[in-house]
Amino acid sequence: MANNEKLVDQITSMDEDFAKWYTDICKKADLIDYSSVKGCMIIRPYGYAIWENIQRILDTRFKELGHENVYMPLFIPESLLEKEKDHVAGFAPEVAWVTMGGNERLTERLCVRPTSETLFCEHYANIIRSYRDLPKLYNQWCSVVRWEKTTRPFLRSREFLWQEGHTMHATAEEARAETVQMLNVYADFHEKDLAIPVVKGCKTPSDKFAGAEDTYAIEALMHDGKCLQAATSHYFGNGFAKAFDITFTTKENTVAHPYQTSWGCTTRMIGGIIMTHGDDNGLVLPPAVAPIQVIIVPIAQHKPGVLEEAEKIRAILADAGIRVRVDDSEETPGWKFAEYEMKGVPLRLEIGPRDMENRQCVLVTRYNREKSIAPLEGIADTVKEKLQAAHDGMYKKALENRIRRTYDCHTLEEISEALKNGDGFVRAMWCGDEACEDRVKEVTGVGSRCIPLEQEKLSDRCVCCGKPAKSLVYWGKAY
Amino acid sequence: MANNEKLVDQITSMDEDFAKWYTDICKKADLIDYSSVKGCMIIRPYGYAIWENIQRILDTRFKELGHENVYMPLFIPESLLEKEKDHVAGFAPEVAWVTMGGNERLTERLCVRPTSETLFCEHYANIIRSYRDLPKLYNQWCSVVRWEKTTRPFLRSREFLWQEGHTMHATAEEARAETVQMLNVYADFHEKDLAIPVVKGCKTPSDKFAGAEDTYAIEALMHDGKCLQAATSHYFGNGFAKAFDITFTTKENTVAHPYQTSWGCTTRMIGGIIMTHGDDNGLVLPPAVAPIQVIIVPIAQHKPGVLEEAEKIRAILADAGIRVRVDDSEETPGWKFAEYEMKGVPLRLEIGPRDMENRQCVLVTRYNREKSIAPLEGIADTVKEKLQAAHDGMYKKALENRIRRTYDCHTLEEISEALKNGDGFVRAMWCGDEACEDRVKEVTGVGSRCIPLEQEKLSDRCVCCGKPAKSLVYWGKAY
Repeated sequence: MANNEKLVDQITSMDEDFAKWYTDICKKADLIDYSSVKGCMIIRPYGYAIWENIQRILDTRFKELGHENVYMPLFIPESLLEKEKDHVAGFAPEVAWVTMGGNERLTERLCVRPTSETLFCEHYANIIRSYRDLPKLYNQWCSVVRWEKTTRPFLRSREFLWQEGHTMHATAEEARAETVQMLNVYADFHEKDLAIPVVKGCKTPSDKFAGAEDTYAIEALMHDGKCLQAATSHYFGNGFAKAFDITFTTKENTVAHPYQTSWGCTTRMIGGIIMTHGDDNGLVLPPAVAPIQVIIVPIAQHKPGVLEEAEKIRAILADAGIRVRVDDSEETPGWKFAEYEMKGVPLRLEIGPRDMENRQCVLVTRYNREKSIAPLEGIADTVKEKLQAAHDGMYKKALENRIRRTYDCHTLEEISEALKNGDGFVRAMWCGDEACEDRVKEVTGVGSRCIPLEQEKLSDRCVCCGKPAKSLVYWGKAY
Repeated sequence: MANNEKLVDQITSMDEDFAKWYTDICKKADLIDYSSVKGCMIIRPYGYAIWENIQRILDTRFKELGHENVYMPLFIPESLLEKEKDHVAGFAPEVAWVTMGGNERLTERLCVRPTSETLFCEHYANIIRSYRDLPKLYNQWCSVVRWEKTTRPFLRSREFLWQEGHTMHATAEEARAETVQMLNVYADFHEKDLAIPVVKGCKTPSDKFAGAEDTYAIEALMHDGKCLQAATSHYFGNGFAKAFDITFTTKENTVAHPYQTSWGCTTRMIGGIIMTHGDDNGLVLPPAVAPIQVIIVPIAQHKPGVLEEAEKIRAILADAGIRVRVDDSEETPGWKFAEYEMKGVPLRLEIGPRDMENRQCVLVTRYNREKSIAPLEGIADTVKEKLQAAHDGMYKKALENRIRRTYDCHTLEEISEALKNGDGFVRAMWCGDEACEDRVKEVTGVGSRCIPLEQEKLSDRCVCCGKPAKSLVYWGKAY
């Protein structure tokens, strides 16, 4: 255990300094490295493998729902970005501009895409003619750039990886249904695959995406009580379609503008995984996206037959579709235990001479360190059950944290009082007035996160002005 | 057939104008669209699905050989690009420069990556310490930018998609073996999956990658007799390692620089597919990467049971792992035949009332339009055989074209004479002198393509100067 303790010492504890604990995990679990490009991160193999698992699961779901992948240019000419007024106002201050090609100054600046609505719209104007061309259900996996001042790995970086869905529909209802459908896909993915409970809601008008009529988001509560916007889905109406002159001939032979959505999620989700499930021993990965689901650690591996048995178990688990690896390196078992705890591998399987005699092995679940003995007979089924139990337990633990840190408040004083127990979600009624929204933030420090789709009535009065309330709002401090 | 002929009329014939035929296919087969971003293309769903199939096959092979995916930043600071002198000399004239972030001028220009050797080297300097850290076998899928003056879809665009492998090894032999191994992976992929025969060879010194000791490439002959460099693999020695101060402690406890490779292939391969297999009816796709391998066209689809039978066959083929679709739209069968010929779907399956009575269907292979009758009993096996036969036939046809257009020459006059029959590969001996290489190009118009790994001795004399020859060289006009 000496080695184990030594490795654990390498990361700052969560309670001591949550921000440092976070970046320690990013580095020590080999997720990222820094480079000389300020604000951009290197995603290392272990971190990228998590992203590949996320991509595979989401891409499959998108395609099952009829979406197709495309690739749009990396650059947007300044004049194209300017076509939709709200959009350019929102993004122009935070884009990177290409002004030189080789040794020549460009006649028009090109921005490195911060998002691709404008490019999709230009293309849609070319290819949409008739109602028969609708809906268009396109998605793109790529990197985008936003020139942030303060950056943190995964949570906020100048370049990040994401997917952006962009769809066009004949009617507003159909586009609205798509917006909500994709919000539900994200919520479902977070709960079923990432074991992260989320609140589905609508952003307040002041917090909408630049150019959108409505912005929906899923909001999750991190271990430190701060909130993470984990994915968004926007309904655009036909504003962009008008700005980009996209029209189609309807069934009734009239000419109309189609209705549009966009929706996206990013590598930020990896930050959400770290801050929801991680602990003072390192990362804790949800089984569905863990690059290694089971690590087999041979005990007394130089004794006859141990490595062979470990390999036999590996083959059985791999055949059952489990992502599994044996660590037969020269390091001590204690070192290996600490290493794979740091890397958040959901399940450890130990096998040694004594276990072999008894035709059993030891299983240790990462998130709660629960240890059990399992017969080698039927080990694949046992491991699958343990992985499912790990997912369920992680979800429950995260939900309990959220419930413990969710405060129902009726006055600004109640909010300030509640937050003395630590940051969290504040639930309070709102009149719909932006002045009240600003004042809540000013007085209590928490901003509006979302207007949840599942409304409740905590009272009839706005938490701020006391006038009649319109909606229940989730408030919190945001990453 | 009237409809069919009409659609076919839409593309320029190959013999009339090969370049226009090529761009016609890119557009009419829905592979790409242009945008207002000069030199960048939009890859549409049908084109992108080909790329996804290419990615899936290659990524699996890379991983089987122990490679891991990572993601490096999009930007390279000017000072980092300048660290290796040959490298910056080769790339600086053709990069796009970011000079503004938001409203602020950057203190140092950033280039949009044209390739990522410098970023990988900076990272490797951070993470390689000991021989135990070697080899490092990294790969990245991303887009890169090169500010080309003349652009064509897939073949040469300012932005393109690619993969770039970057590996580090303890010894020169190991790095050399990796370079050749990856060249073989590319060659094998082209022959087994894309049905494109290739020549494996080494570039002449004047044609090496900027900073490489040796550049290997696979070269393919297009339908018009011009050559396409389809993928490259570079051996760097330890030049970059020295420039970036990458060192490791050897087993013998000395300090050494590791040896490096990089290798890449791009969306250009889709251009290679078009120009190797396409014909005057449109695209012809190799089954391994075709988004749709079999299109089922119901005949007299309003007759009872036809659509149900078509759907039944679709389900049987899909269950057998075949990418299959039914077109039950209102268009005529003739229109559908032409449409899927344009899109290069390898196999068409027609099913109508008469066929159903006889428990059979009609199969038409795209590349040679061969028609046959097949019993519905065992249709999945029959279809698989037909797809394999299509691949084999396409490969054979492409190889025959190459053989027919390959000319063995002993003098410059023989080269000029041979090329009167049309462009092609010229095989001729070379003394190794760059002046002769230049003169061959000046006099005959063909440049050196590669020094093939499989050497033959056509004569003892250089085709140009008549002095003793060192190597057989493939010459040709390049895309």
